[in-house]
Amino acid sequence: MSHYKLYCIGASGNAYKIALYLNCAGLDWEPVGVEFAGGVTRETNWRADMNIMGEVPVLEVAGKRMSQSAAILLWLAETTGKFAPTQDERFEAMRWLFFDNHKFTNNYAMHRFQNCLTPQPVDPAVLAFLRSRVENTFAIADKHLAERPFVLGETVTIVDFSMAGYVYYPATETGIDIAEEYPAIDAWRRRLAALQGWKPPYDMMPVGTSPRVRTS
Amino acid sequence: MSHYKLYCIGASGNAYKIALYLNCAGLDWEPVGVEFAGGVTRETNWRADMNIMGEVPVLEVAGKRMSQSAAILLWLAETTGKFAPTQDERFEAMRWLFFDNHKFTNNYAMHRFQNCLTPQPVDPAVLAFLRSRVENTFAIADKHLAERPFVLGETVTIVDFSMAGYVYYPATETGIDIAEEYPAIDAWRRRLAALQGWKPPYDMMPVGTSPRVRTS
Repeated sequence: MSHYKLYCIGASGNAYKIALYLNCAGLDWEPVGVEFAGGVTRETNWRADMNIMGEVPVLEVAGKRMSQSAAILLWLAETTGKFAPTQDERFEAMRWLFFDNHKFTNNYAMHRFQNCLTPQPVDPAVLAFLRSRVENTFAIADKHLAERPFVLGETVTIVDFSMAGYVYYPATETGIDIAEEYPAIDAWRRRLAALQGWKPPYDMMPVGTSPRVRTS
Repeated sequence: MSHYKLYCIGASGNAYKIALYLNCAGLDWEPVGVEFAGGVTRETNWRADMNIMGEVPVLEVAGKRMSQSAAILLWLAETTGKFAPTQDERFEAMRWLFFDNHKFTNNYAMHRFQNCLTPQPVDPAVLAFLRSRVENTFAIADKHLAERPFVLGETVTIVDFSMAGYVYYPATETGIDIAEEYPAIDAWRRRLAALQGWKPPYDMMPVGTSPRVRTS
C-alpha cells in the first residue's frame, strides 16, 4: 500500500493539484477513484467519514484524512520540503494560494463545470457571467507570469501546482483557449509540463463519468 | 498616525474581516477609504502601487503593503498572537480559511454584489445560480456551527473573522436572510457580535458609494 492515498477523480482539477505534486515530488502515492459525478461526495456518509465539505480531493496518510487542496499542499511542502516556498516567500505564497482558491482556479473551474459537466446545458447568461470573471482573473495572472517564470519567481513551488489545477484540461471542456488568449499563462503551463513526473489529469487519476463534451 | 492603516470601503466584507479583527484585538488602526465602486482599485496605478489583484483590503504596516484578507489575518495572528489558532488547530484553520475563500464568503459575496451593487439589475438566471451555490455552502457551515460555538471549537480565532466577512450586511443587500434560513450561522454571528470591539461594517469603514438597494 502506498504511503499517500489520494481520493480523486480525473475531472477534478482540485484533485489534480495534489496528484501532480505527488508525482513531480516523486512520492509514493496511489489514486483511489471516487464517482464524483454520481454524487457520492455529496452523500451523508461521505461527508461524515471523509469530508464534511463534500469535495475531493481527500488525502489519506497513515490513517489521517485531509481535505482542501491548498491546505494539503501546504502540509505536504512542510512535511516533505519539496517545492516549499522559502521563509521570505511565505506571505506571497499565501497571497497567491488564496487568490487561486478565491478566483483563479475557482472561476475557471466553475466555467468549465457549467460548460461541460452539468447534466443539461447551462443558461447562457450564467456562462457569460463566469467567463467575464475568468477574463478578469486570468488577465491578472497573465500579467504576473509575463514577468517571471513561476508564480513566486525563479523556482517552482506549491503555488504553481495549485494554480495549475485546471489549466491542462482541453479547451473543448473548459470553453476557453488558454493558448489563444493568455500567452504568459500558456508559456508557464508549458514550463511546468516539462517537469519530471508531469502528466495530464486523465493519465493520473481515474476518468470515471466523462464530461459531457467528451462523450458527445 | 496609526500603526495599521487599512485601505477599505464599507461595502467590502473582505475588508471588514480585517477591520473587525483589528478592532476586536484592540490594535491601533485606522481606515483609509477607497472609492471601490468608482473603479479606483481596478486602475493601473492602484494595481501597480497597491495590489496587482485589484482588490481591497490592503493593509499597510510600517511601509509594507499586504493584500488578501486571509493571508493578512494569518500574518496578524502570527505577529500579534491575538485570535491565533493553536499549533494543533493549524491544519483545520487552513482548511476552513480556504473553504471560506473558495466558497463560503465567495458565493455569498458574489450573490450580494449581483443583488445590490451592479449598476443594472442582474440576469435572474445568474442570481439563481449564485443562490444555489450559497445554499450548498451555507448548509455545510450551518451543520458545522450547530455542533460548536466557533469554527474551530470553543475559542474565537481568525477563521471566525474570515467567515464573518459578509454575514452582518442586511438581508436587503444580500438577498438572503440568515436569521430565517441558517439558525446555527445566525447564532454564531450573534456570539461573535458580543465580542468587545465588535461593530457592523458601515460603522467601521467609510460607506462611499452605497449599494443600490440602500439608495433606492
